[in-house]
Amino acid sequence: MPDFDLTIRNGTVVTAADTARCDVGVQNGRIVAISESLAPGRRDLDATGRLVMPGGIDSHCHIEQRSSMGIMCADDYYSGTVSAAFGGNTTVLSFAAQHRGDSLLEVVEDYSARAESKAVIDYGFHMIVSDATDEVVNVQLPQIIRRGMTSFKVYMTYDMLKLDDYQILDVLNVADRERALVMVHAENHDVIRWIAKRLIERGHGAPKFHAVAHDPLAESEATHRAIQLSRILDVPILIVHVSGLEAVNAIRAAQAHGAPVLAETCPQYLFLTAADIDKPGLEGAKWCCSPPPRDLASQEAVWNGLANGTFQVFSSDHAPYRFDESGKLPLGDKTTFKNMANGMPGLEVRLPLLFSEGVGKGRIGLNQFVALAATNAARIYGMYPRKGTLAVGSDADVAIWNPEAEVTIRAENMHDNSGYSPYEGTVVKGWPETIVSRGRVVVANGGLCVERGTGTYLARGTPEPVAFQGPGTAAMRAFKALIN
Amino acid sequence: MPDFDLTIRNGTVVTAADTARCDVGVQNGRIVAISESLAPGRRDLDATGRLVMPGGIDSHCHIEQRSSMGIMCADDYYSGTVSAAFGGNTTVLSFAAQHRGDSLLEVVEDYSARAESKAVIDYGFHMIVSDATDEVVNVQLPQIIRRGMTSFKVYMTYDMLKLDDYQILDVLNVADRERALVMVHAENHDVIRWIAKRLIERGHGAPKFHAVAHDPLAESEATHRAIQLSRILDVPILIVHVSGLEAVNAIRAAQAHGAPVLAETCPQYLFLTAADIDKPGLEGAKWCCSPPPRDLASQEAVWNGLANGTFQVFSSDHAPYRFDESGKLPLGDKTTFKNMANGMPGLEVRLPLLFSEGVGKGRIGLNQFVALAATNAARIYGMYPRKGTLAVGSDADVAIWNPEAEVTIRAENMHDNSGYSPYEGTVVKGWPETIVSRGRVVVANGGLCVERGTGTYLARGTPEPVAFQGPGTAAMRAFKALIN
Amino acid sequence: MPDFDLTIRNGTVVTAADTARCDVGVQNGRIVAISESLAPGRRDLDATGRLVMPGGIDSHCHIEQRSSMGIMCADDYYSGTVSAAFGGNTTVLSFAAQHRGDSLLEVVEDYSARAESKAVIDYGFHMIVSDATDEVVNVQLPQIIRRGMTSFKVYMTYDMLKLDDYQILDVLNVADRERALVMVHAENHDVIRWIAKRLIERGHGAPKFHAVAHDPLAESEATHRAIQLSRILDVPILIVHVSGLEAVNAIRAAQAHGAPVLAETCPQYLFLTAADIDKPGLEGAKWCCSPPPRDLASQEAVWNGLANGTFQVFSSDHAPYRFDESGKLPLGDKTTFKNMANGMPGLEVRLPLLFSEGVGKGRIGLNQFVALAATNAARIYGMYPRKGTLAVGSDADVAIWNPEAEVTIRAENMHDNSGYSPYEGTVVKGWPETIVSRGRVVVANGGLCVERGTGTYLARGTPEPVAFQGPGTAAMRAFKALIN
Amino acid sequence: MPDFDLTIRNGTVVTAADTARCDVGVQNGRIVAISESLAPGRRDLDATGRLVMPGGIDSHCHIEQRSSMGIMCADDYYSGTVSAAFGGNTTVLSFAAQHRGDSLLEVVEDYSARAESKAVIDYGFHMIVSDATDEVVNVQLPQIIRRGMTSFKVYMTYDMLKLDDYQILDVLNVADRERALVMVHAENHDVIRWIAKRLIERGHGAPKFHAVAHDPLAESEATHRAIQLSRILDVPILIVHVSGLEAVNAIRAAQAHGAPVLAETCPQYLFLTAADIDKPGLEGAKWCCSPPPRDLASQEAVWNGLANGTFQVFSSDHAPYRFDESGKLPLGDKTTFKNMANGMPGLEVRLPLLFSEGVGKGRIGLNQFVALAATNAARIYGMYPRKGTLAVGSDADVAIWNPEAEVTIRAENMHDNSGYSPYEGTVVKGWPETIVSRGRVVVANGGLCVERGTGTYLARGTPEPVAFQGPGTAAMRAFKALIN
Repeated sequence: MPDFDLTIRNGTVVTAADTARCDVGVQNGRIVAISESLAPGRRDLDATGRLVMPGGIDSHCHIEQRSSMGIMCADDYYSGTVSAAFGGNTTVLSFAAQHRGDSLLEVVEDYSARAESKAVIDYGFHMIVSDATDEVVNVQLPQIIRRGMTSFKVYMTYDMLKLDDYQILDVLNVADRERALVMVHAENHDVIRWIAKRLIERGHGAPKFHAVAHDPLAESEATHRAIQLSRILDVPILIVHVSGLEAVNAIRAAQAHGAPVLAETCPQYLFLTAADIDKPGLEGAKWCCSPPPRDLASQEAVWNGLANGTFQVFSSDHAPYRFDESGKLPLGDKTTFKNMANGMPGLEVRLPLLFSEGVGKGRIGLNQFVALAATNAARIYGMYPRKGTLAVGSDADVAIWNPEAEVTIRAENMHDNSGYSPYEGTVVKGWPETIVSRGRVVVANGGLCVERGTGTYLARGTPEPVAFQGPGTAAMRAFKALIN
Repeated sequence: MPDFDLTIRNGTVVTAADTARCDVGVQNGRIVAISESLAPGRRDLDATGRLVMPGGIDSHCHIEQRSSMGIMCADDYYSGTVSAAFGGNTTVLSFAAQHRGDSLLEVVEDYSARAESKAVIDYGFHMIVSDATDEVVNVQLPQIIRRGMTSFKVYMTYDMLKLDDYQILDVLNVADRERALVMVHAENHDVIRWIAKRLIERGHGAPKFHAVAHDPLAESEATHRAIQLSRILDVPILIVHVSGLEAVNAIRAAQAHGAPVLAETCPQYLFLTAADIDKPGLEGAKWCCSPPPRDLASQEAVWNGLANGTFQVFSSDHAPYRFDESGKLPLGDKTTFKNMANGMPGLEVRLPLLFSEGVGKGRIGLNQFVALAATNAARIYGMYPRKGTLAVGSDADVAIWNPEAEVTIRAENMHDNSGYSPYEGTVVKGWPETIVSRGRVVVANGGLCVERGTGTYLARGTPEPVAFQGPGTAAMRAFKALIN
Repeated sequence: MPDFDLTIRNGTVVTAADTARCDVGVQNGRIVAISESLAPGRRDLDATGRLVMPGGIDSHCHIEQRSSMGIMCADDYYSGTVSAAFGGNTTVLSFAAQHRGDSLLEVVEDYSARAESKAVIDYGFHMIVSDATDEVVNVQLPQIIRRGMTSFKVYMTYDMLKLDDYQILDVLNVADRERALVMVHAENHDVIRWIAKRLIERGHGAPKFHAVAHDPLAESEATHRAIQLSRILDVPILIVHVSGLEAVNAIRAAQAHGAPVLAETCPQYLFLTAADIDKPGLEGAKWCCSPPPRDLASQEAVWNGLANGTFQVFSSDHAPYRFDESGKLPLGDKTTFKNMANGMPGLEVRLPLLFSEGVGKGRIGLNQFVALAATNAARIYGMYPRKGTLAVGSDADVAIWNPEAEVTIRAENMHDNSGYSPYEGTVVKGWPETIVSRGRVVVANGGLCVERGTGTYLARGTPEPVAFQGPGTAAMRAFKALIN
Repeated sequence: MPDFDLTIRNGTVVTAADTARCDVGVQNGRIVAISESLAPGRRDLDATGRLVMPGGIDSHCHIEQRSSMGIMCADDYYSGTVSAAFGGNTTVLSFAAQHRGDSLLEVVEDYSARAESKAVIDYGFHMIVSDATDEVVNVQLPQIIRRGMTSFKVYMTYDMLKLDDYQILDVLNVADRERALVMVHAENHDVIRWIAKRLIERGHGAPKFHAVAHDPLAESEATHRAIQLSRILDVPILIVHVSGLEAVNAIRAAQAHGAPVLAETCPQYLFLTAADIDKPGLEGAKWCCSPPPRDLASQEAVWNGLANGTFQVFSSDHAPYRFDESGKLPLGDKTTFKNMANGMPGLEVRLPLLFSEGVGKGRIGLNQFVALAATNAARIYGMYPRKGTLAVGSDADVAIWNPEAEVTIRAENMHDNSGYSPYEGTVVKGWPETIVSRGRVVVANGGLCVERGTGTYLARGTPEPVAFQGPGTAAMRAFKALIN
């Protein structure tokens, strides 16, 4: 019989599969009992009328990261993880960004140092590989993978980040061998660059032209291309932040034939459109991200994709920049969208928005919400079953939601440093009130309850889609034998 | 602290979401605790080295049913439920078949009487609606639904069962209003009838011609048509026993656009092909079912559909007939496939086959296996969370599997009455050894441990896909207002 | 050197392939020379600045036909063919409609008698087969085919006309054997009937509800089904009057895989939408046809289908009814769309509309216009090369167009008897001024130049898609051998 | 009355639209009369029992071209055009290849000089643009277009030829402005390079590995990408030498939605497969071309695409290299497919193969054959109506075919210099016996009848698909206004 450090009592416990009235008992930071009626612990949280769910995992966010243009995010690992926690999350996976010339190991050490002393919840890193030299890909990358960074991201666009298809094949081949997962930012660099250059030459530099340059066809083309590269080697990939209807279709078509293609989308593609960028002056810069929000038909396609399983991951792509010279409006030139930092905040509102509009409006079920909030990301990124669920043996990472709370989103109430919210004034129903990380109460009664630096680094294991890759067809095995 | 009637100890507990080493505590037939280490109960099962999974739900089987041709199934509710239990199941949903002229309520009473005194595990009924008069559809069907038969099946083929599209719309409209789920046997009657008549007139009556008459296009056409009928009213449907590649594609295409279309497949479409029917003499009759097994491309499409979520349900379509004059070889005429009863046994091998070839070969994950074995059917057919999972508050319906057991499938070892197995000689790895239903040990040590008649009837609630139907589009609401 | 009865001089001669400045010489009703500069004939038409094109073939029109509801068309073979001639046509293929119980041969004799004494241009018949008895299908139909009615139409809707899928297979099989072409009116009868009944019961009888009852899914479902029936036997079919986006997609998808599926569309699906039916009172009845005009997305799909070859045939589906008690507003009941005759006039405007909006706006080329106006129909319906082109040896059926003429469509200027035009007030650019049939000038200077009864019956040969059907795959040949 | 220089009498004259028994009268190299019975000319060819068709246009061939690897084709403009003429052609469009650093105008002058003194039939050039500098694209290319090279080709692969997507957009934009047509060799360079490098490093250099390196996904990916680039600007493109099933599908899907995408295929994709390359030693090099022949499923897809209009152009992609050190087996290294010249001969057999297997086996019609042999290429490449048809005013370019002649293809009977035939021993039925170019008899009785240098250069006009591009959508016009 456990001697509980903490119990969560009388709530409705929700996982990706189940919904049950019961108590949860915690010992040494782990769940040890899920039962009808537990003996009191050293501390007891009453969850009567509340939903007791796994703490969210925001598996795609940019924190304390310097962009390739040299602009530093508004959030460090303190403000970032605090904001995440207030938004119902207990884990973040953020990026450790290699700039060209960097050694991956130095990058990791650098980011580890940034996070270690500040994070209030647990965190892991996806490496961004931007300099795919033979040494980086074949020597450093395997080392990094073995240190628990079992996923990494490649870009098909941005001058300073972009890999070409040859390099992506190199990376995919290493991922296949080392059992890691490749995330892809899929936009056609040349298309964006070509349109943008012409727009700017002709004086069309306002923020709204950012969405013109990032044509939906640039996204769907690159998405299709990334999928074909993955099919050549039968290696899983995950297309991040999918925004447009044709990109959704390309992904779903590949999945239909058994191609190992996963996909992620974000709140901005469910709740915003390109029309939001079309604001007077530079105001629209606040809604500039890449890919940009699209149109209503794409919104519908993305919702359908969430509901029917085309998307496994729902993340914030939190990329916080202040609407001033430090971020959205850099010093040199305020007249063109090319110089404005890309991205918007989202760590804190990702889950409330999805809960309110997804579960509340009947578009997805409550268990599906948990899968998208936490469980799928835990599995896909190799943290399962430690993270992402409420099961015996799992970390006691819990978000206790009040499903009836009505909250108006206001930047002034957010805990990140971007200073604005793209969803200002939106009313949502349902809010995470109490957050527990490894048995520690992190957020309660609207306040933070932990010190900076109490979050820990997560060395991750083999991503599930990679672990589940069967032997493949005989033809594929023969092909791999030829080239390896 | 519960005083447990039963504990299951030291096993690996698997649900549709989770896999955890822990104990399960049962009281009054329900799970009350899932914990690291429970106090002993009145009875304790040691599950060391075993997988502790929800008892399977075979949601599509024919038991003690007289076919429209007047042939009685080989299994009554005793042999049928015993066979199911030995195959890892704790619930069956079988059919209560209306023949034309029958009152639905009388049919229910009739089938209830058959099952009540014989079943060893829990059971529910799907009504087969074959006589869609105004009285049946608008008066009797709502009554039946309220008595817990919240799903029913319509046929698009068979002379004595077939509804036309008009009647299907009637049924769908009632299902929409009464919040029930319509299952559809989708084959084009006229196509099959036309080909069959010509084949038989020309002397092509051997069993293998059954698969010629049941052309894959007959299935894909009717599947497409059923989907369109459902789209007209935006009512969920479930296409049962999907076999062919084009039918899979039609379903997936509909799901892509958010149409509320669910689908089921069966072992015969994963493990057999039409070549299995082509045997000397009448032997092939053993492999005759409708739709028939197809080809390797269709097998691959069905496997892909299981893996990528196109199919939510995996059932046996158990339809047991002896290979003698009582079933496969009826008295009047042994020369044509038209008189042979359609169907094959499958209750006992459904789960072992899927476990061995699905989980064992890496085509699906272990949690996905549980979802297909039990959880999805429980949700879809309105039995959740009472059935289909291992959660606090759920019925203690448990199958304890030995994942390492190698078993050769032999008809002589099966517990149904059909007298043969379509999979004779197949070796599978993984077998359910101990079966618990509402806390009662039903099967253990290779023997049955309960009396006949100890299973109970399940009055079911609103099917989940129906419960989750949102308000629909404004256009659909306007349309429904016009016609209702 | 021919001694020309007629020359057409100095024009631009346009065929489905060519556009050339030259003269055309005619002898005994046939073209005998196409040359740079011909000697004068007995009569010479100066076509300077004009396009000299094959006379149009309207291959889908209803003339002097009594509907299954008993309503007679407004046009007899005089007014019908006069209107056709003024609209640039030299051939019409109209329907000889079997009502149930009729012998096909008597129907032919009846329609032949109607046409013979009245037609001013050449004509042929498609038989409508509504009573598919064994005698009709296997005895009479082959006789009719041998008399030159090598195409016939089946309906999937209308109580008095509808064949079921079994009967359609019977008809397709005979068509395959006898080398004839089956045209299909593809709408799901039960869907329309079900919606219509409910609409009318609830008082929604206004004309605009006709378009609600004829749901686009009723069309796309039946289109898909007809295609599958044709695929089962690998027999060519032609889907007539295609209106909706999903139906277009179904046809194109089938063609992609080599299925012998042809398709036709009509002006109403290029130029009208369902909004045109939504008029005060009963006025909307003028725009009621089946299928009804759809929406802008469907218009675009139909235009794309014309341009990219999905459609081979462009006809009027001329079905003229007066807006009075004899047609659109039958005596018994003026309150419901179910009693209003379906159809609209179009013989005279089909080609001017297509020329103006198709060629004039750059959506199709001039040669493509000729193919759609005449050549394709001649080939597909077995009249080629006698009809449908301007080639040596072909009938001298010529339409001389003024490409610059601007004409406002006015019912008062039309020559049919329907008394209204759905396109009233539309301005088109390009009009056929002079019409020559077998060397006879039929229309010139705005007047009719021939007597009634001077048109002749066309016994047609093997339709080209049928003639071109190769031997098919080995599997298809084996299947046909089994069933025939 | 013309005083004919030449008549072709008693034949069956076939164009893309028509098939007629008649005579053809020629004056000053042009057709002036097509008539039932012409007066004798200065010379008369009797075509009794023969098909009189437009001389073929081989719109994709490499003649006297030095490859980017420095290897010169086996054929100069004499042997190349002689071989073309013997194969039923009267026009070739070959490539003028810019190597990096070259001025387009110098390239043109260079190739003009090569062709002028040697060609025996008429010829034009497509420019290969490999160095897309601002000067080349924006200054030289418009000059070249105005000199009648209204089409040009870009490569997505080959180190020395490849343009990136940015450059392709530059080229497409100029093509749009200057009304020219861009042809695209669509294979993903990085994919091929990556696989090839690994294959060769591991010793897999035999010719058959060429087909492994040129993975079908490399083609379908690049095809899809090229289509998206064209869609961004709504500019017509023509995908050349399409070989694989997925590439065909990508093209057809684009056409379905009205994208201005044209496509070409070649005999090697209808008659060969990758298995043909798998020969002992280096022999397989004879069958190496890019893309390589694929499999039977792709063959079927390509045949379907020819039949249903997905492909408008059928060319040889004649790229003749001797099977010796001058071509297929270059000096430096005989051990790897990377150093072997790509391509195979085809000028002389393109049309006989298509006639025999296409028309003869009922896969395409006779008029469709003419369209693919000549007419479509004439239109698409701006030579119509001067070339590509038999119409009054057109050049008297005629191929008189004996449809009954059975010919066994033998390299020794071919007139090109490659020294082998990929189709050695194939028996075809139907052969072009007499060839007339601008009224001159070029080939008759198995012999050449003209001197070298008698062919003339064709300055071409606006390609038809470009000329037919409508104004586009309002959104596209707005977008073009923004960026131009």
